[in-house]
Amino acid sequence: MTTTVKVNKDRIWQRVMELADITEADKPYTRRAFTDMYLQGREHLKSYFSEAGLETRLSESANIIGTRQGQDSNLPAIALGSHIDTVIEGGRFDGIAGVILALEVAQVIHEQDIPLKHPLKIIDFLSEEPSDYGLSCIGSRAHGGRFSEAYLQMQNPEGETLGEAMTRMGADVSGVLDIQPANYKAFLELHIEQAKRLERTQTSIGIVTGFAGIWRYSITLEGQTDHAGTTPMDDRQDALLAATKLISLIQETAANDKSDLVATVGQLELRPNAVNAVPGWVRFTIEIRCLDATKHALVMNAFGKEVESLLDAKELKSATKEMISDVSPAPCDASLQTVLANACDANGLSHMPLTSGAGHDAYHMLHVAPSAMIFIPSKDGRSHTPEEYSSPESLSEGAQVLLDAVLELDSIPVK
Amino acid sequence: MTTTVKVNKDRIWQRVMELADITEADKPYTRRAFTDMYLQGREHLKSYFSEAGLETRLSESANIIGTRQGQDSNLPAIALGSHIDTVIEGGRFDGIAGVILALEVAQVIHEQDIPLKHPLKIIDFLSEEPSDYGLSCIGSRAHGGRFSEAYLQMQNPEGETLGEAMTRMGADVSGVLDIQPANYKAFLELHIEQAKRLERTQTSIGIVTGFAGIWRYSITLEGQTDHAGTTPMDDRQDALLAATKLISLIQETAANDKSDLVATVGQLELRPNAVNAVPGWVRFTIEIRCLDATKHALVMNAFGKEVESLLDAKELKSATKEMISDVSPAPCDASLQTVLANACDANGLSHMPLTSGAGHDAYHMLHVAPSAMIFIPSKDGRSHTPEEYSSPESLSEGAQVLLDAVLELDSIPVK
Repeated sequence: MTTTVKVNKDRIWQRVMELADITEADKPYTRRAFTDMYLQGREHLKSYFSEAGLETRLSESANIIGTRQGQDSNLPAIALGSHIDTVIEGGRFDGIAGVILALEVAQVIHEQDIPLKHPLKIIDFLSEEPSDYGLSCIGSRAHGGRFSEAYLQMQNPEGETLGEAMTRMGADVSGVLDIQPANYKAFLELHIEQAKRLERTQTSIGIVTGFAGIWRYSITLEGQTDHAGTTPMDDRQDALLAATKLISLIQETAANDKSDLVATVGQLELRPNAVNAVPGWVRFTIEIRCLDATKHALVMNAFGKEVESLLDAKELKSATKEMISDVSPAPCDASLQTVLANACDANGLSHMPLTSGAGHDAYHMLHVAPSAMIFIPSKDGRSHTPEEYSSPESLSEGAQVLLDAVLELDSIPVK
Repeated sequence: MTTTVKVNKDRIWQRVMELADITEADKPYTRRAFTDMYLQGREHLKSYFSEAGLETRLSESANIIGTRQGQDSNLPAIALGSHIDTVIEGGRFDGIAGVILALEVAQVIHEQDIPLKHPLKIIDFLSEEPSDYGLSCIGSRAHGGRFSEAYLQMQNPEGETLGEAMTRMGADVSGVLDIQPANYKAFLELHIEQAKRLERTQTSIGIVTGFAGIWRYSITLEGQTDHAGTTPMDDRQDALLAATKLISLIQETAANDKSDLVATVGQLELRPNAVNAVPGWVRFTIEIRCLDATKHALVMNAFGKEVESLLDAKELKSATKEMISDVSPAPCDASLQTVLANACDANGLSHMPLTSGAGHDAYHMLHVAPSAMIFIPSKDGRSHTPEEYSSPESLSEGAQVLLDAVLELDSIPVK
């Protein structure tokens, strides 16, 4: 497939910069969900929805949804979207690129008056980033029909419930729990990579094969707290020393696998935490992510064996392992991955398969629609920081792939 | 030398138990310095000073000092002592044994009316344990002429200065800074071992060769904070992973030396300390103790090489090392060690040389008097806990060694 319809690189860049200007002045780039700054950003965004000729409404869960009717009103919609909220001192591209480029696709189709058989929907999901209410991906979770009363009752530090906050954003929370998942032909999301794999391999587009499973554990090691001055090395049960062996081991196991498998110890606490005390107690977290669940077992088996060995050698009194999170891997739709790869090929853009280590709105859309994602390169892999950067060329290439994928999908008969 | 004068094992045990009863009722054994409970303990202690026929006074720094005059008033005193304050939920023996057994020596000499040429002084030092004012060994520090105005101005969390607290305990703080070190022939302290070396080798008495030097460092490692889900293992600069390598290395170096050398990482902090973030920043402490200062260098050289290697391999961005404490090793008086060893031999008690890894009142007395210490076994090496235990036999043996050493010293001409 060769297309003659081209996205507008300059317009894309200008819009990303315009949104970047809507930030807390003293800590760019901050546009937290549920703030006035966020509402201001969304108000500006609506002008792009309007320029793209979309009929725009706010959904029950306060997602902005713009629709271009299709020629056949019985066909399911093709949907594109992401989010425009940021973390504190976040970047100009995370989520934002996905919304602006989706709108670019709609605007090109509108301007060129390309007749689509299917309806086209562009979605700006409410509050994708971790929010003050303890929940992320709020809009996509609700849109996917996976919301609960418990979510509505979650509170921010000031005591406002999430339900109240969503109402402030224009949601109709009375309807949120009854959302019937919409009927979609496909959902596509573009996102910046947030890692260096594309940049390092000089690849233009990452085609996401799926969302890594996320397994989290809390590990507690008990040794013996002792006086650091009076206790000889061979009389110690130093829980921190035992922890260092386990931390090294699980990270080496993950590194040696040379796959998408990552294992991280991100939190650690020790007691009594005094300069002159042998630590008798350590608690730390393990987080493992990978698309293939057997890799998770690989790490935890190695961990279990080393724990046994530490207990046998009396280097520890006890070790407990509590699973605190268990999110199954979720593969992206295979045929959509092919459509996206074809779109890359048609534009002469190099592409590679990538696992998404992070959750995204598309993860929640997977439950109601065949879904897939593409990544575009992030400079130095940086994200959630003001230095976050994707080039005008990468943005434009990503938009072109999305556009061509939509046109291709529109011509593919509904299964 | 064979002595026919014997200490009273039952009296010793009874007195240790009597003092143990003077505790905060809900958290035995707690008799914190500067509390009413401490004053109550000292009031009871004074009855033992009295029974031992000692002239008792409170020194400028609120040490209780009991004196038995010698036949020759021109001779310097032989002094024995320790402390009776405890940590919170501490034990019945740490410090207490040293005071009770010193008083036993004086009482036996008094009851047997043994003529000593030298004056004999028994000292209960004020507040040896770490206090709420941020200072330990307060009485012995002052008695050794090493007090300062800055110490007097230190405050507890309630804002009371140490000077005010000492005054509450009966000190004359106006005189504390002008204390002229007394002229001692010898200072001896008995203490529980707080480790398992005597117990494990079934040795009755440890003869302390000296006080380990204490070197403390604060180490800061900077890597790169990254998203734990999106950052592949080979793109990370995980400061915690680097820290685990350094922590393992320094402890292995100390363990392999199989000497008195100990190295401890007791405090550790990481940032951002989140389950889903690669830690980009870690700070931890290193504490090294040993009598031979070259062993300190052995550990820190190994540490320095590994840091270089981590920086070369780009596993870290930077590493900084700040020395936060540097206490030189202090050997005990050699001839006093011989006197103590002779006293063990005369009583058929096995003995071994030991380095004291912890500071004690005797450490501060070293600056004004030839000083030495003996250790008696601690069950399971436990200390600073209610389970702390030394047997009536061990206490009695320790007292006998002290007594015989005093008699021997009294017969040795002044150098």
